[in-house]
Amino acid sequence: MKQLKGNAVVGQSGGPTAAINASLAGVIRGVAAHRDVIPELYGMKNGIEGFLSSDVAPLLPLFDGEEKLRLLEQTPAAALGSCRKKLPDPKKDPGFFEDLVARFREMDIRYFFYIGGNDSMDTVAKLSEYLKTVDYEMRVVGVPKTIDNDLADTDHTPGFGSAAKYVAVTLSEIVRDCAVYRVPAVTVVEIMGRDAGWLTASAALPGAIGGEGVDLIYLPERPFTFEQFTEDLKEAFKRHPNVVVAISEGIRTPDGRYVGEGAQSGAADAFGHKYLAGAGKVLEQYVKETFGCKVRSFELSLPQRCAAHLASDTDLTEAGNLGASAVAAAIGGKSGVMAALERKSNDPYVCDVVFRSVDRIANAIRRVPDEFINERANGITPAGIAYLAPLIRGERTIVYRDGLPAHAKIR
Amino acid sequence: MKQLKGNAVVGQSGGPTAAINASLAGVIRGVAAHRDVIPELYGMKNGIEGFLSSDVAPLLPLFDGEEKLRLLEQTPAAALGSCRKKLPDPKKDPGFFEDLVARFREMDIRYFFYIGGNDSMDTVAKLSEYLKTVDYEMRVVGVPKTIDNDLADTDHTPGFGSAAKYVAVTLSEIVRDCAVYRVPAVTVVEIMGRDAGWLTASAALPGAIGGEGVDLIYLPERPFTFEQFTEDLKEAFKRHPNVVVAISEGIRTPDGRYVGEGAQSGAADAFGHKYLAGAGKVLEQYVKETFGCKVRSFELSLPQRCAAHLASDTDLTEAGNLGASAVAAAIGGKSGVMAALERKSNDPYVCDVVFRSVDRIANAIRRVPDEFINERANGITPAGIAYLAPLIRGERTIVYRDGLPAHAKIR
Repeated sequence: MKQLKGNAVVGQSGGPTAAINASLAGVIRGVAAHRDVIPELYGMKNGIEGFLSSDVAPLLPLFDGEEKLRLLEQTPAAALGSCRKKLPDPKKDPGFFEDLVARFREMDIRYFFYIGGNDSMDTVAKLSEYLKTVDYEMRVVGVPKTIDNDLADTDHTPGFGSAAKYVAVTLSEIVRDCAVYRVPAVTVVEIMGRDAGWLTASAALPGAIGGEGVDLIYLPERPFTFEQFTEDLKEAFKRHPNVVVAISEGIRTPDGRYVGEGAQSGAADAFGHKYLAGAGKVLEQYVKETFGCKVRSFELSLPQRCAAHLASDTDLTEAGNLGASAVAAAIGGKSGVMAALERKSNDPYVCDVVFRSVDRIANAIRRVPDEFINERANGITPAGIAYLAPLIRGERTIVYRDGLPAHAKIR
Repeated sequence: MKQLKGNAVVGQSGGPTAAINASLAGVIRGVAAHRDVIPELYGMKNGIEGFLSSDVAPLLPLFDGEEKLRLLEQTPAAALGSCRKKLPDPKKDPGFFEDLVARFREMDIRYFFYIGGNDSMDTVAKLSEYLKTVDYEMRVVGVPKTIDNDLADTDHTPGFGSAAKYVAVTLSEIVRDCAVYRVPAVTVVEIMGRDAGWLTASAALPGAIGGEGVDLIYLPERPFTFEQFTEDLKEAFKRHPNVVVAISEGIRTPDGRYVGEGAQSGAADAFGHKYLAGAGKVLEQYVKETFGCKVRSFELSLPQRCAAHLASDTDLTEAGNLGASAVAAAIGGKSGVMAALERKSNDPYVCDVVFRSVDRIANAIRRVPDEFINERANGITPAGIAYLAPLIRGERTIVYRDGLPAHAKIR
């Protein structure tokens, strides 16, 4: 394979995570180690949208040292900005791709790295598909991220471990908070996850690791019935007066309707995703009417995906490794692939970087498997705990300035 | 003053904070240093309620070393459990106090420490008032705690600094999260604070310290009008597309009604406090109808008061000092007082421990003063920042086990 010399471009796309900048730092480190092949790495502001409007920044001068890269790694959300642009089908709208390739040519871009989730891998897939049909050599590699952990063909996704750590730590604290009074009370905590319950499953970690945890966990992978919920609460009250319930925002009744459907806004984003709100509030009202006890509900909301001060070291390290490996693989000739993780062992935890074709990834969703969900579908099995536990391990030493974590900025 | 020998009892009362166990650790350290005067310190489970049902634990054997005390300090919420028991008026129900004193006599309790907020200082006031009328010498000292920072006669309250740090750090992360897209969007973050806006004011710290912060801050100290909110949002949109708004749960319209009043549950606790919910949701709906842009709202909720992993070192250190000082002061003869903080200087930050009569404290509320709120009542002045900034400084090195903060347990 001949060596392909030229510049690189990197973008971040989709929702924020605490690890997406660690992946970016990995790509920067990877390119910096191969400046003989790749003289400059440009960051697209707001993903492919920014690239189309020539809004790019050369990143090697901005992050010329480990201190700056470590600061970038502890910065939440996409430092380059993000977008939710859905690329057209190259067969139907080749003009769009012709414009893109003209820009690549102009800037001598030969490497394209895109950090994101399903929709970003769709971008990688379409772009690499189109490139096969034109006379311009460029290598396109995806770097995964999503707090939802629902990307296919990878053991897990960067961003998930930190979000799972946020959920687990926060619930370990909430369980303590709820335990201080003796009066019967139910606390319902609503966790992100439309179709896959990975983050909600992480709510099982405090109980498994520390001994005190949430009582009931409901995932979108199993139908939710109010009859079983009532029975489960009665059982939980037999053990102690303070019951903590973790639910996915996307739990559904057996007819397939979202529990929060009555309360949802009806809005949908550019990809047709429905915005959900309110499963927790629906359960709160139900408990109030059925049990008449003190009850409250709230959503963990945005901090789940941006609480970088509490990032998992395992997660940030893997995110960086995937970014750097993507660069090395592209230089080695790979294209149309995503850097992925393949677990070799839970204990000791061993996970390798592998490369998978993006074709199979873009439109698939990886759900929590049957063997991780208990028989009553209200908790997580030891196999599920064994899978989740390594991903939240380790803490970075965060640099604080005047009491707040320092963040990197890309102007 | 003759030395009063006998045992001590300590209780925690009211809502959880991240620093209430640091105060408890301070009391334990204080007693451990004076075992010649106080042979044993009993912890009341669930405050005065537990004491009345003889549910107490000897604490000196449980926390016999700095390692165990440090673990207690990093544990959120009341390790002894809490209660919201309102004591009767000693003049109207002396029988209640006769029973209490009989229990004190039985256990040779001569020192009574109560860690809590307004309602707990009411307990300290009533008990010390009653003791003046009977032939039983016991010294009663209050140790303040409340995330709301609304206790009178102290510069600030332990628990507030850590909650303020949680609010400031979380908003610094949320501002980054919201900034990734270019589409106009409003994010409304609802922060605890029924009558005093101290915690919400802390939302100004990321902007003041890090340069990027929330755009608008509304406190319950000033009437909220939708007309001004509309104007403020229009101004904010001129600066950037992603507007972040921090509001107190207790913001009220000029007629004195809570903005969230339509959405509130109507429930009230044993002290007659109304539970609020929904000011954020009301504003979300208003923005949607008025601006038609993307909008979301959520409450920071329980993590504000129990996120011990993010505690302020300044806060935990002061909480411990107040606990230990309360013991020393009681041994020295003080009773019917609360250990309080008196600030000498902002820069360098110097704050002394002083003692104040609980009579003046129990039923007063300290609100954010005029000079801390800007003219348009939508932000915090430099004087306010100078007051708040020192309280969130410093981070403890938290002991993690398998990715989760370790917590102390009192059985």
